[in-house]
Amino acid sequence: MIVSALATAVGINLGLTLLLASAFSLLRRRAPYVSVYSPRRPYAPLESWIAAAWRRSEEDIHAASGLDGVVFVRIFVFSIRVFAVAAVLGVGVLLPVNFMGDQLSLIDFADLPNKSVDLFSISNVKDGSMKLWLHFSAVYILTGVACYLLYHDYKYIAGKRLEYFMTSKPLPQHFTVLVRSIPRTDGGSVSEVVDKFFKEYHSSTYLSNTAVHQTGKLRRLLNDTEIIWKKLKNVKYVPRQLPTENPPRKFLGLFGRSNILGKYQKKLENLEENVRMEQSDATRRQEISAAFVSFKSRYAAANAIYIRQSDNPTEWQTEHAPDPHDVYWPNFSTTFMERWISKFVVFVASVLLIIVFLIVVTFIQGLTYMDQLEEWLPFLRKILEIAIVSQLVTGYLPSVILHFLSSYVPSIMKQFSTMQGFGSVSGIERSACNKMLRFTIWTVFFANILTGSALGQLEIFLDPKEIPLKLAVVVPAQAPFFIAYVVTSWTSITSEITQTSALLYHLWGSCAKCCKRDDADPETQSMHYHSEIPRILLFGLLGLTYFIIAPLILPFILVYFCLGYFIFRNQLCNVYAPKYDTGGRFWPIVHNATIFSLVLMHLISIGVFGVKKFPVGSSLLVPLPLLTLLFNAYCGNRFFPIFEAYSTESLINKDRQEQSKPEMAEFFRNLQTAYTDPAMKPIQRSSGYDGRTAPLLSSV
Amino acid sequence: MIVSALATAVGINLGLTLLLASAFSLLRRRAPYVSVYSPRRPYAPLESWIAAAWRRSEEDIHAASGLDGVVFVRIFVFSIRVFAVAAVLGVGVLLPVNFMGDQLSLIDFADLPNKSVDLFSISNVKDGSMKLWLHFSAVYILTGVACYLLYHDYKYIAGKRLEYFMTSKPLPQHFTVLVRSIPRTDGGSVSEVVDKFFKEYHSSTYLSNTAVHQTGKLRRLLNDTEIIWKKLKNVKYVPRQLPTENPPRKFLGLFGRSNILGKYQKKLENLEENVRMEQSDATRRQEISAAFVSFKSRYAAANAIYIRQSDNPTEWQTEHAPDPHDVYWPNFSTTFMERWISKFVVFVASVLLIIVFLIVVTFIQGLTYMDQLEEWLPFLRKILEIAIVSQLVTGYLPSVILHFLSSYVPSIMKQFSTMQGFGSVSGIERSACNKMLRFTIWTVFFANILTGSALGQLEIFLDPKEIPLKLAVVVPAQAPFFIAYVVTSWTSITSEITQTSALLYHLWGSCAKCCKRDDADPETQSMHYHSEIPRILLFGLLGLTYFIIAPLILPFILVYFCLGYFIFRNQLCNVYAPKYDTGGRFWPIVHNATIFSLVLMHLISIGVFGVKKFPVGSSLLVPLPLLTLLFNAYCGNRFFPIFEAYSTESLINKDRQEQSKPEMAEFFRNLQTAYTDPAMKPIQRSSGYDGRTAPLLSSV
Repeated sequence: MIVSALATAVGINLGLTLLLASAFSLLRRRAPYVSVYSPRRPYAPLESWIAAAWRRSEEDIHAASGLDGVVFVRIFVFSIRVFAVAAVLGVGVLLPVNFMGDQLSLIDFADLPNKSVDLFSISNVKDGSMKLWLHFSAVYILTGVACYLLYHDYKYIAGKRLEYFMTSKPLPQHFTVLVRSIPRTDGGSVSEVVDKFFKEYHSSTYLSNTAVHQTGKLRRLLNDTEIIWKKLKNVKYVPRQLPTENPPRKFLGLFGRSNILGKYQKKLENLEENVRMEQSDATRRQEISAAFVSFKSRYAAANAIYIRQSDNPTEWQTEHAPDPHDVYWPNFSTTFMERWISKFVVFVASVLLIIVFLIVVTFIQGLTYMDQLEEWLPFLRKILEIAIVSQLVTGYLPSVILHFLSSYVPSIMKQFSTMQGFGSVSGIERSACNKMLRFTIWTVFFANILTGSALGQLEIFLDPKEIPLKLAVVVPAQAPFFIAYVVTSWTSITSEITQTSALLYHLWGSCAKCCKRDDADPETQSMHYHSEIPRILLFGLLGLTYFIIAPLILPFILVYFCLGYFIFRNQLCNVYAPKYDTGGRFWPIVHNATIFSLVLMHLISIGVFGVKKFPVGSSLLVPLPLLTLLFNAYCGNRFFPIFEAYSTESLINKDRQEQSKPEMAEFFRNLQTAYTDPAMKPIQRSSGYDGRTAPLLSSV
Repeated sequence: MIVSALATAVGINLGLTLLLASAFSLLRRRAPYVSVYSPRRPYAPLESWIAAAWRRSEEDIHAASGLDGVVFVRIFVFSIRVFAVAAVLGVGVLLPVNFMGDQLSLIDFADLPNKSVDLFSISNVKDGSMKLWLHFSAVYILTGVACYLLYHDYKYIAGKRLEYFMTSKPLPQHFTVLVRSIPRTDGGSVSEVVDKFFKEYHSSTYLSNTAVHQTGKLRRLLNDTEIIWKKLKNVKYVPRQLPTENPPRKFLGLFGRSNILGKYQKKLENLEENVRMEQSDATRRQEISAAFVSFKSRYAAANAIYIRQSDNPTEWQTEHAPDPHDVYWPNFSTTFMERWISKFVVFVASVLLIIVFLIVVTFIQGLTYMDQLEEWLPFLRKILEIAIVSQLVTGYLPSVILHFLSSYVPSIMKQFSTMQGFGSVSGIERSACNKMLRFTIWTVFFANILTGSALGQLEIFLDPKEIPLKLAVVVPAQAPFFIAYVVTSWTSITSEITQTSALLYHLWGSCAKCCKRDDADPETQSMHYHSEIPRILLFGLLGLTYFIIAPLILPFILVYFCLGYFIFRNQLCNVYAPKYDTGGRFWPIVHNATIFSLVLMHLISIGVFGVKKFPVGSSLLVPLPLLTLLFNAYCGNRFFPIFEAYSTESLINKDRQEQSKPEMAEFFRNLQTAYTDPAMKPIQRSSGYDGRTAPLLSSV
């Protein structure tokens, strides 16, 4: 890719970004769009949204979207800090050095636009030149800074996690244990068996249990009632809603409204009758060998989780109970064996997905090489020879396609994680986040690098000591593509704030209202951490791996993170409502991913110095990855357990804190019903029944 | 190696084996050797030792050497069962098939002795012959049998473990927790800090604690007193011991006995004075940030272990306390950081050790190739040309040298494990066992195979899909060497029962008695599981990997296991006193090793069938390793946790069982002092102080 092509890409995206941003600034306060842009705060502040996003304190964000929101914003803060330093080093020192080098012997400012961007990459530095010491020390400095920040933030978030635990109001999930694979003995109901077991072995601390039922059919029925109920509502309120309209009246005129009302009424009654039957039926028969068991103290619950209950490890398996709103009910019917095999199946499936995607990416990559493209599609030659088109195609199109395709993967990965039988949405999304991360790194990063040069390169991973050298050859070759990729991402992240899809849906919805009476009010969505976090981490990976190779990428990445910082602070407060709070358990993923990126950077640098005839540098770099891994192992020992479980110290102190409080009696009363399947609750029309959340719990 | 060379080896070893065995049968009941051959039962039964060994029930063995002894014998039982089946299949079916094959076209019985043993190996089967289906099904059958037995035994031993726990008398280690990295706050003694912490968070169940002290110097002093004390005793008892002797009198006459008595007496008093000072000193100052904390119930102790105590995971680390006799005192001074880094160092060290050993093995391997040897040592050519010598050298010498060298490794590995800072001897030996296993497999098996063919072969491990094919080429080449190796091992295992080294030491000791008064009574040793188990598992590995390639090896291996079965049943009951009881925690190591061998066998078979132009077979074998690994994963879920910890169910039931018992009061009284460092106990001359065990504990 030549400089002008890059310029084109930057131009286009800058344009789009500004366009979208200003569109948002204009629309956000207009009445019809408020439900899209700040469903959570109907009245947007008059000041500019950027200022508002800037002013918000961490407390606001925690209040608005829990510790996970705080962690999510923290990722941007961390990245901005790291890449501020990186950009200073890269653009301030390395870039000029590279540019002044004359390895590629194309240094004249005459027609810079038509020069390759490699001019700014390390490939332009003379082999074995002393200037490489600058690159060498840059690697050490950046690693040092990154590790310091990693330690600092890990500690900070671990602290926050404990702090919020100690200051939280009593939460059902802290007192409750999810028990699975309960052995069905002598035909007693699950609930009885559980009662017997825990009364025997936890007599002093056991409070109550809630057996889980097979409610698939019930859930379907309830959805139907929902639909009918909505229709009914619409029919009822037609007159007051559209007093002047004609077509609907006529439309209704065809067969009087009363008929329709009656029809729906009847349908509804039948359905609700069925629901009640099904509910009582479920309680009687369709029990699943899983139950939520509540205890009188947090410490007691912890005991039940961390000490194996039964002599047979495959029975009475206990785990942390999720937040009642967070429970994923359909999954409880799976047995130990099923869960355990599905893990294996899912692993295979996700590997296959990666391979399939690799093939697609290979084609996309082809686009960056005009000649290949012209071979495949000769009839296009004429068009492709137009400068601007070719620049578009080489510099811009591939990354657009890649963005587009990638956008479908998260939902697939989430599906996979769902198959693994987690009991909570948060569990599913955390595992999906890990899958996405592996996927992104493999397809977007390695795939592009390997396919970009030659798929044959794949075998380099089979010869360990060769890896750095090979990487050093293939990674730089892809610098232009990734610079374009980063630039394109500006648009995609800005389109996040304009909620393009939601906006369209909203517009369509509002027009739809007129013709077919269906109030399609977009319920507030939740943040998709499992798709956002890996994307952000990918840019961290790109920035670090290309830090010394092509420092030109750094400012673009920095811009990306700054955009993200403002946009998501706004989104977290105004748009997304948290569906769960894992208490910051996404951070370890971020930490490990960053360590991986650092080590990869080291390997590549070692290779690059080798290629650049700078053996001293490569050999002096060898200790760095080892030190980084040791540092990571230490952090793992020092902080990770805090994200896995709370300590006796915290648990007992917290319990003591509340012993005396009067409201606890009330809490324990509610706790006993906290984990009843919403589908099993009597239908409450008043609160407009909603399949996902259990109204009862607002009191807990 | 040709058949006659093999015959020679078999002959020699059979001879030696019988010789040693009969020597033992003769000597074992002679008065002077009883202390060597049955130190634990002075009066050996009159019947033959084989019959005795046969008659012993599992209860006897458990009584004599704990569940570990039972597990150890179980390894032989398991192996005998597997290889009985293997031998039937191998010798009954595969061997004839191989022999009748004419690939090597050397089938005439004329001079069988000078034929290569390859005649009996799969290499003699015609390529792509239908007979290979026999080999194919043999692999499936044997895997099926092995997996069934694995599951059965895992279940059996897990059951035994629980059974013995429920029937055991109260043991201090079940009520006690080892706490490390205790934060030293405000100059309070460790004991006080611990008291404060556990009284706060485990108020209802906390019993007492014993701080650990720096007792290195003290231990040295005590050893000195021991020596003097012994000398003193000898001098005192000279007259009654040797009433008729002259030289000693004269020898004493030089400077009257009274002088010596006085001299020793004085020395002893001084030393004992120092000891007392040092002891009080230690109590006051040299505290280590580690302590044994005892609880009122097993369940309470479990709580303290499995729920993290402090908000800072690197402080208040708790683990299972070892049996008081099993504690390894010198290790407690290490800090969290030290332990954690030493793990890394030890890993590197053991890798280095393997590499060094590889080089040695490479040379040894050279011996199996006469020509090479003659190149290196031309002056030997004359001798080497003598048939018998050359057969000795090629067929026998290499494996002898290998046996000899390997015998030094276990102690090194144990040293490594000691450096890792385990708190108990059993912990050290279990980790040493794992190290030895990896070492044995790498040096003895892979090293021989790779160096045997060419060290260059090492790179085959860098190209996964090539591994089976390469293995199929290099593994069979080494069959003769390993057959010889197995045969040699007969002698080494029989020399176990004759305790050759102990015998010599004893003889020397008794002659020494006459000249220098030192009663060198060999104290009963303990079984070295960490060196024995890996050796046995190696033969399992050999047997399985050569099952279809060279079935000739199977009967020899079967003989080895039968010998081992009788010999070790005898040794466990008469010779070795258990130093600790891990409750069968060595079994998972055996299980995993066997799974590894099976998978290796599959890979090799896949390769062999490939080489043999039998693609159907190789492709149909592919699922087998996957199934085996799934089976292993299931066993891991089903049984392994039982070896890691006892369940709430068992713990609470066991606690309830004893609540009422009167002797518990006595037990808890002793428990409070159970974990005092023997070096800190007042010197008790009466019980003939012994630096390792704490006499007090016999009561616990």
